[in-house]
Amino acid sequence: MSAAETLSPTLQLAFDLISRRSVTPEDSGCQALMIARLEAIGFTVERLRFDNVDNFWARRGTEAPVLAFAGHTDVVPTGPEEKWQHPPFEPCIVDGKLYGRGAADMKGSLASMVVACEQFVAEHPTHQGSIAFLITSDEEGVATHGTVKVVEHLEARNEKMTWCIVGEPSSTHHTGDIIKNGRRGSLGCKLIVKGVQGHVAYPHLARNPIHEVAPALAALSAEHWDHGNEYFPATSFQISNINGGTGATNVIPGAVEVVFNFRFSTEQTVETLQQRTQAILAAHHLDYDAHWTVNGLPFLTEEGALVSACRGAIKAATGIETELSTSGGTSDGRFIAPTGTQVVELGPCNATIHKVNEHIEAADLDKLTGIYQGILARLLT
Amino acid sequence: MSAAETLSPTLQLAFDLISRRSVTPEDSGCQALMIARLEAIGFTVERLRFDNVDNFWARRGTEAPVLAFAGHTDVVPTGPEEKWQHPPFEPCIVDGKLYGRGAADMKGSLASMVVACEQFVAEHPTHQGSIAFLITSDEEGVATHGTVKVVEHLEARNEKMTWCIVGEPSSTHHTGDIIKNGRRGSLGCKLIVKGVQGHVAYPHLARNPIHEVAPALAALSAEHWDHGNEYFPATSFQISNINGGTGATNVIPGAVEVVFNFRFSTEQTVETLQQRTQAILAAHHLDYDAHWTVNGLPFLTEEGALVSACRGAIKAATGIETELSTSGGTSDGRFIAPTGTQVVELGPCNATIHKVNEHIEAADLDKLTGIYQGILARLLT
Repeated sequence: MSAAETLSPTLQLAFDLISRRSVTPEDSGCQALMIARLEAIGFTVERLRFDNVDNFWARRGTEAPVLAFAGHTDVVPTGPEEKWQHPPFEPCIVDGKLYGRGAADMKGSLASMVVACEQFVAEHPTHQGSIAFLITSDEEGVATHGTVKVVEHLEARNEKMTWCIVGEPSSTHHTGDIIKNGRRGSLGCKLIVKGVQGHVAYPHLARNPIHEVAPALAALSAEHWDHGNEYFPATSFQISNINGGTGATNVIPGAVEVVFNFRFSTEQTVETLQQRTQAILAAHHLDYDAHWTVNGLPFLTEEGALVSACRGAIKAATGIETELSTSGGTSDGRFIAPTGTQVVELGPCNATIHKVNEHIEAADLDKLTGIYQGILARLLT
Repeated sequence: MSAAETLSPTLQLAFDLISRRSVTPEDSGCQALMIARLEAIGFTVERLRFDNVDNFWARRGTEAPVLAFAGHTDVVPTGPEEKWQHPPFEPCIVDGKLYGRGAADMKGSLASMVVACEQFVAEHPTHQGSIAFLITSDEEGVATHGTVKVVEHLEARNEKMTWCIVGEPSSTHHTGDIIKNGRRGSLGCKLIVKGVQGHVAYPHLARNPIHEVAPALAALSAEHWDHGNEYFPATSFQISNINGGTGATNVIPGAVEVVFNFRFSTEQTVETLQQRTQAILAAHHLDYDAHWTVNGLPFLTEEGALVSACRGAIKAATGIETELSTSGGTSDGRFIAPTGTQVVELGPCNATIHKVNEHIEAADLDKLTGIYQGILARLLT
């Protein structure tokens, strides 16, 4: 197939983006491509490089409300390239499927966003409010110099997004069958429980930290943290790692390390979880150090203008009744939602993301362009 | 000091033994030296090499009762030789202390045993019963081709020891202040508790083995196994190692491994401990594999002819009232006692064993020779 002759505008842009080897945190020219297209239709673009990470903020219009598209140009590593049926950075369509690293996560979404805006602006050059783009190249990596920094930058000058569509691949079987209207929070902890090392033959001269931590871990595992709510399942606690011991069978170790994680609903805060955990540890009289890591706060976008616009646009473009979900891992939505923005994630099917032979149905990208265009029309006209 | 001029017979033989670099399981000619001395005073010697381990059984006399001396010619490695004040295989006496690897554990004891027999046989050439030696070069290592094999060999022809003195360094402050008249048993277990691996964000698709094992470990740690008895402290349970997790903080592991150890009194058997452990694991509905290792059965030599002879000989040679103890680790006594032999451990002070600069008071070895000779006199004349 000669791509230049037969590809839709969305697929052509997706090809151009996938061809760029932008393994996180590299952008490899993807953002320049998007910026050129957006400037051509009247966006004002602010390049925001933080540390080694390229980001940009683009906006068309100065009025509220602001509908922002958010996404990332970086992709996860390919894994063993010899296991790919087609080279990961040489996009191709075979049997109707678009192959390439980033096809689903999320260069396909970026192409749909840009083309949707081009078509929308062509039809509605004087639309209401503003359209914006918040694009990073540091979502798949440590995510410290990407969206979080751009949001801080906008907050510092009190520039707000009313609504935000994150292009993460939210769909399961058909484009638009699921949108994520929230995500659980993720709170991690490395717990080091201290005892006194000694010989197993002389336990009275030692204090075994494994013995001391066991009932506390049993209590933490058995705790019902909450019942969840209408949108979220109950908060869950999981121990991922436990390590104690010298390897010798006759030595009582001096410490044991336990790593655990909460996935928590909007019924909890970081503080409530820390307080309840510390109360349980204290009740078991442990001598411990706890090192907490807030990986992400929970967010929730309830039924409202944004969710309604998404439902309507999906139904119009695909005939599908969409479902709301808050399941799964974290995304950059966790950095945007705390500013008061209504955030949803809406993108293609996620079955092959992060795997070899990542692909999506090529026709689904054009549907996604239609969905995004429909949302623009519903919210800004 | 010119050793040949001034050393006592016991110290001279200790020097000769320590000079041989017999790091476990090497014998390096130590046994040949002992055998030559014993054959010279009428012992019949049977060399018993099992696998790569030299052992021998020597006996003077054919009648019961049999008083056996048991010990090992192998020593533990030196550790960093540059940390020794004196080369570990070049024995020397400085400020009245005999330095060298094996001085306390237990080439000093071997020298005292041989010289005690030489002096006793010279005085009592027609003593009652028999004197025997059971010597191995595999006590400090895996101990699979040493005393245990010699005992099997003797049992196969129904040759019995009535009493056995193991030359392990039992003393704390003064030679003879403590004799070990028993040892606890040691039972080890590697427990593998199985779950179902998964992502911490989807705990309903996984089964966390750390969560499942925690209450069982709490119950095992809290269990009172027994109250001990007149001779033994209570049986103790200690977890030495616990390891579970992939290292990633977002993965629920598929299994967790727990290594634990019982030090148990004569109130328990291997079977009672296994049954009670398995009952606790079953009560917690665990899916597990348990790999048990019997490191040693408990043994006890109650007050009787052997203990009385030890007490009397120690009092006569040193003026000390000895104490009985069953504390500490395991020794080859665990292999001998099950044959019905009364076993005690009686040797020099153990403060420096297995350390750099191993040493004992040189004068204590001559006292030990006197003690062993006194026991021979009390039991075989």
